[in-house]
Amino acid sequence: MARIEFPLILINFKTYPEATGERALALSKAIERAWKEVGSGLAIAPQFADLRLISGSVELPIFAQHIDPQPPGAHTGHITAESVKEAGAIGVIINHSEKRMGLSEIDAAIGRARSVGLATLVCADTIPVGAAAAALGPDMVALEPPELIGTGIPVSKAKPEIVRGAVERIRATNPAVVPICGAGISRGEDVKAALELGAEGVILSSGVVKAKDPKGVALEMALAAIGHGGGRRG
Amino acid sequence: MARIEFPLILINFKTYPEATGERALALSKAIERAWKEVGSGLAIAPQFADLRLISGSVELPIFAQHIDPQPPGAHTGHITAESVKEAGAIGVIINHSEKRMGLSEIDAAIGRARSVGLATLVCADTIPVGAAAAALGPDMVALEPPELIGTGIPVSKAKPEIVRGAVERIRATNPAVVPICGAGISRGEDVKAALELGAEGVILSSGVVKAKDPKGVALEMALAAIGHGGGRRG
Amino acid sequence: MARIEFPLILINFKTYPEATGERALALSKAIERAWKEVGSGLAIAPQFADLRLISGSVELPIFAQHIDPQPPGAHTGHITAESVKEAGAIGVIINHSEKRMGLSEIDAAIGRARSVGLATLVCADTIPVGAAAAALGPDMVALEPPELIGTGIPVSKAKPEIVRGAVERIRATNPAVVPICGAGISRGEDVKAALELGAEGVILSSGVVKAKDPKGVALEMALAAIGHGGGRRG
Amino acid sequence: MARIEFPLILINFKTYPEATGERALALSKAIERAWKEVGSGLAIAPQFADLRLISGSVELPIFAQHIDPQPPGAHTGHITAESVKEAGAIGVIINHSEKRMGLSEIDAAIGRARSVGLATLVCADTIPVGAAAAALGPDMVALEPPELIGTGIPVSKAKPEIVRGAVERIRATNPAVVPICGAGISRGEDVKAALELGAEGVILSSGVVKAKDPKGVALEMALAAIGHGGGRRG
Repeated sequence: MARIEFPLILINFKTYPEATGERALALSKAIERAWKEVGSGLAIAPQFADLRLISGSVELPIFAQHIDPQPPGAHTGHITAESVKEAGAIGVIINHSEKRMGLSEIDAAIGRARSVGLATLVCADTIPVGAAAAALGPDMVALEPPELIGTGIPVSKAKPEIVRGAVERIRATNPAVVPICGAGISRGEDVKAALELGAEGVILSSGVVKAKDPKGVALEMALAAIGHGGGRRG
Repeated sequence: MARIEFPLILINFKTYPEATGERALALSKAIERAWKEVGSGLAIAPQFADLRLISGSVELPIFAQHIDPQPPGAHTGHITAESVKEAGAIGVIINHSEKRMGLSEIDAAIGRARSVGLATLVCADTIPVGAAAAALGPDMVALEPPELIGTGIPVSKAKPEIVRGAVERIRATNPAVVPICGAGISRGEDVKAALELGAEGVILSSGVVKAKDPKGVALEMALAAIGHGGGRRG
Repeated sequence: MARIEFPLILINFKTYPEATGERALALSKAIERAWKEVGSGLAIAPQFADLRLISGSVELPIFAQHIDPQPPGAHTGHITAESVKEAGAIGVIINHSEKRMGLSEIDAAIGRARSVGLATLVCADTIPVGAAAAALGPDMVALEPPELIGTGIPVSKAKPEIVRGAVERIRATNPAVVPICGAGISRGEDVKAALELGAEGVILSSGVVKAKDPKGVALEMALAAIGHGGGRRG
Repeated sequence: MARIEFPLILINFKTYPEATGERALALSKAIERAWKEVGSGLAIAPQFADLRLISGSVELPIFAQHIDPQPPGAHTGHITAESVKEAGAIGVIINHSEKRMGLSEIDAAIGRARSVGLATLVCADTIPVGAAAAALGPDMVALEPPELIGTGIPVSKAKPEIVRGAVERIRATNPAVVPICGAGISRGEDVKAALELGAEGVILSSGVVKAKDPKGVALEMALAAIGHGGGRRG
């Protein structure tokens, strides 16, 4: 995970129109400006077809939104670790709540990502699932209660016990795994609250992607993370 | 898990013709005769449509082969915990290699089974997946290398290090979970080898279902388990 | 399709608590009383684990809610055509909106059902999907707009043009296929409206399953179908 | 389908290492040289992450290997019609045998592709499935017996009756749909045989991707198509 900095603020572009193609590139550049001002912590997860467009123009750490467990070969329509790595990704989201995978598929996808040097962030919807994900040995596990995703109600304020509980269970299961949280994060103070609960980063989407001033929101979040004294693992 | 005895020898009927409908009933009665002779350890997992036929005629512990994570309601074609419980099952296999489930689905299915009092056995194909399954807190985790299933090459002899490693990882992750193993088990000595490696039971299918003398094979396995000094948890 | 009578009123038990186990049996008997009074048209689709319980006690035509495309064999947790046939089903619902299947899986499931003599009813959510389903050659195709399922707003009154359009496209694509419709059907007049639009039957669930007087509602529907002069194909 | 020429020779890059990233670009340029010599008929289907790399450098018609039925929005890890269109695709493969989709998903994906102006090619594994696919109204349907894919045994020579039967059923179901075939195509004479059976194109992969001289094979195929007097619809 050479280039991934903590606390991590990972902005997932999903398949939003505001974050597709040329608009994804413009959004990436806006986030990059915030990142350069603060000097740490922001990363993005664009769509597959936009990875190369963006990686060729910005220096931000880039995650793919998913990979399939299949190796290269006769697998039409699949996403290999190799293809996103060569297109400029340094990490990958696995098992997002909108792209759930089988337990054994997650295990296989982590192995495939590792084989090409991609950092792995596995999403979980409950504390036991977070522990199970940690047992598989990815680099990061992100706890995201699905009912809060996209609501603007931050998990770090609405359900602090879930974030704290997930951080504890993830660390107890596998101390090498970095706990992250997400869902409803849209302001700097949401990030601050998450870090105070022990998370080492956040994952969010509409809070930045659909903001009137994406650069401003990204900057606010990055400053909140810095203020918290982040960067320990960086 | 009131009525489940250890060491457990769980015979999965899959959807074999030899283990469907009236033939499933005859097979169950043959296995029951072995069970009554030895007095412990055998259990069966028939098809959904046969659960009631068999539970009404034999006293063997019965598992369902799968449940879905959905609660009762508008879910046409699904298998609820309630329906298999009322049909006579006392346990359920979850995430068999031939019926893989999503990580969050496994978590939800365990919760649904528990809510109606069904014991849960989660299958795993690798040691990390076994540890992840254990983190979800089922009653049992069964390690089955898919490449050996149905081969007659017993995992307990061909890959002892995998059984031993799985037993260790499962216990370390969650000491309340009972480790089981499976794949290629077809003789009493395969059962004995599995128990010597620390497993508290085996799961198998064709070794009994397709045997010329199913009762004889089941008896040989049950005696091997007894000889090993099983029944500790019973 | 020896024993399936038209106009068909197929009552899908889904996995409702009111239609599980002993309650499913009581419900089946109530529907059977209506069927015997009128002498035609009603059929039921209980859960897998209840097929044998019900087929042993009532004479109503019974459908399974789903089958998998796999043949008998090493397919843990799957539903074979053979298993539901032997448990008493004479037909099967395929591709219900709550249990969607792949296009090639539907083709294979129709073939499997036919090989054991089960009548096939394929569900469709749009007119083109209804035509595609008809091209596969099942016995019946049921058009059900998913947005009306379970609402009590009958497709036959709220969207008559969809029912009429589906009937036309299904017949034009394959004249051997019987067109059915469903979604929101809860009264006799909804059935009548469906038949007037050219459908030869309806599929429904909560309208009877959750009725205070299931026998009364089933009777009202069967009479409405008779009043329409049904039974042409019977 | 402004820019798609018939007879069509569509080369699917799958996720082969020889057809990923920079190697995909080199392969595309080789195929483009054959295309420019002959002046018609070749097209390619690269991986998502490579679409933009290739569309920026070659003039060949480009297909995506798959799209999901979901519209733009909160769908992490999905492939929208919009994203592949903006990245340079003019068509899309739907329901490849290695990426099977639900019947209703195929219907929805065709609608999504059409809404952005992508041509649609739906794959089918049997003649009835080909007819069902045609009923959905895509631009093209490709019949590919899965057991021949990747074998080098050409469907057009090994199973001519399947190609002829599919062409007839597809045309009878929907005369606006262009019938294509595939599986095992690796030489010019395989293409010629397919066209003589009534197909208006072929889809293939390893025959060119894994050839020692991809440009030579592509050229041989394009010349065979020309020799057949293709280009009727172009």
